[in-house]
Amino acid sequence: MIQKLADKIKKTHAPICVGLDPMLSYIPDHILNKAFAEFGETLEGAAEAVWQYNKAIIDATYDLIPSVKPQIAMYEQYGTEGLKVFQKTVEYCHKKDLLVIGDVKRGDIGSTSAAYAAGHLGKVTVGNKTYAAFDEDFATVNPYLGTDGIKPFIDVCKEEKKGIFILVKTSNPSSGEFQDRLTDGRPLYEWVGEKVAEWAEEHMGETYSYIGAVVGATYPEMGKILRDIMPKSFILVPGYGAQGGKGKDLVHFFNEDGLGAVVNSSRGIIAAYKQEKYAAFGSENFADASRAAVTDMIKDIDGALNAAK
Amino acid sequence: MIQKLADKIKKTHAPICVGLDPMLSYIPDHILNKAFAEFGETLEGAAEAVWQYNKAIIDATYDLIPSVKPQIAMYEQYGTEGLKVFQKTVEYCHKKDLLVIGDVKRGDIGSTSAAYAAGHLGKVTVGNKTYAAFDEDFATVNPYLGTDGIKPFIDVCKEEKKGIFILVKTSNPSSGEFQDRLTDGRPLYEWVGEKVAEWAEEHMGETYSYIGAVVGATYPEMGKILRDIMPKSFILVPGYGAQGGKGKDLVHFFNEDGLGAVVNSSRGIIAAYKQEKYAAFGSENFADASRAAVTDMIKDIDGALNAAK
Repeated sequence: MIQKLADKIKKTHAPICVGLDPMLSYIPDHILNKAFAEFGETLEGAAEAVWQYNKAIIDATYDLIPSVKPQIAMYEQYGTEGLKVFQKTVEYCHKKDLLVIGDVKRGDIGSTSAAYAAGHLGKVTVGNKTYAAFDEDFATVNPYLGTDGIKPFIDVCKEEKKGIFILVKTSNPSSGEFQDRLTDGRPLYEWVGEKVAEWAEEHMGETYSYIGAVVGATYPEMGKILRDIMPKSFILVPGYGAQGGKGKDLVHFFNEDGLGAVVNSSRGIIAAYKQEKYAAFGSENFADASRAAVTDMIKDIDGALNAAK
Repeated sequence: MIQKLADKIKKTHAPICVGLDPMLSYIPDHILNKAFAEFGETLEGAAEAVWQYNKAIIDATYDLIPSVKPQIAMYEQYGTEGLKVFQKTVEYCHKKDLLVIGDVKRGDIGSTSAAYAAGHLGKVTVGNKTYAAFDEDFATVNPYLGTDGIKPFIDVCKEEKKGIFILVKTSNPSSGEFQDRLTDGRPLYEWVGEKVAEWAEEHMGETYSYIGAVVGATYPEMGKILRDIMPKSFILVPGYGAQGGKGKDLVHFFNEDGLGAVVNSSRGIIAAYKQEKYAAFGSENFADASRAAVTDMIKDIDGALNAAK
């Protein structure tokens, strides 16, 4: 799957993913009203609005991009109705040949991580049958519990040819509180990065490993160091756009082959129509605004990579 | 809610929670067969078996215990069908006046943690209405992202009078890999503990804070130190029984008032009928075996606490 991601990035010149993190406040009134008219102001109504919104954005952008990153929390907050739409979104993206990075940030003790890995990337056995419940291509994983929290995910990835991105240095303002603490002269995130590099070398696809890392666009200097520590890993880079990152700050997240990173933008793409820059599209044409924002993002990042050559 | 937990523990003499972490391999054949006969060997069939199994165990133990801790991964692996049963289990436990600790180990950047907090402990707004999706009383939270990943949970707890348990030192064998790393002479888990203590003092119930911690029964020496660091916090203690912890090892997780800790046992209770000690009950009477195992666990822990007085 990691090779498919690399191939699709080369083909599209778009080392990006669109963060499908819908909030009801982003969704235009015409979609909300229609969903509420059909299902009422209910969890089902909210989920239907999210689904119609996602579908329009996917339809308008899928040919430009290799991957999407739905944030499961935005669905989970609406309970099982929301999670049905998470699943439906994953399925629809697969139909459109998009790779799906489930931003689930799971991680637990061994047997529990095994259940998460089965549910999100693998299969569960029921009697003599097996089922893939959520069936993402990649998942994000939290490393706080150490190797035996990660290992079950790696095992499933190996079996199913899928991949994970392990949180190393997150994009949020207080990520340094624990992640930056110095041990033997090096911050914790570097030690986590060393561990990711070790796992990555043991679990290689064709040119890259299927064990990747998450490093926030908001910390480009740390990204440069972590790039060197984890040469075989793809880095999933959240924090572009709305959170502050820009294309020229991101070149050091990439290797010299122009690969090795996939930059995420969520609000900046899916709610583009709310920005002054794209306001002319109007809320009726929100998906066209998202397409324009994707094109601009690709130009910004691909341009910065070319300028750095 | 934390005061209700303290009151219920005093009343039952049972500072414990039953871990509702069902695996299909624990569930007796007569339940599996009935569920599969009705729904087939499907995700729905698996979910139905889990529900009937949970219900029987809750019915057989609810009068002895203050709380349960369902591990959401065990439900999530069966997709939305599994999560419907997670929700149904939470509701049923509320009817039985049991406090529910959702073992969800969520944690993300601010806006995403806010969605998790709303979905698990609070309410979401849909148009002019609000809904509680999963509605646990407490949730476990991962601290790797720092304050802005935790703060949205605290805000919801304050609003809804609920609580969280933050992972400090987990029970698994490799928890030390990152959690034990020394910074300025102290392991990371102590720094996380200091932070929990700080949050706890700012967010007090009557005698205890509604910001608690998770510390594994498998590390009693560390539990003693963390007890002192976080005097106002309840400690959720997984790893009793099947993972190796015993009552006498756990006395230092408690304060002198006999409160301040709630010890979890999952497999040791819910699959008690599979142990030699309770085998005489037979698989048909698995719930009675669970009741006997609860009684023994209470005796072990309450006895150890009395002996230590």
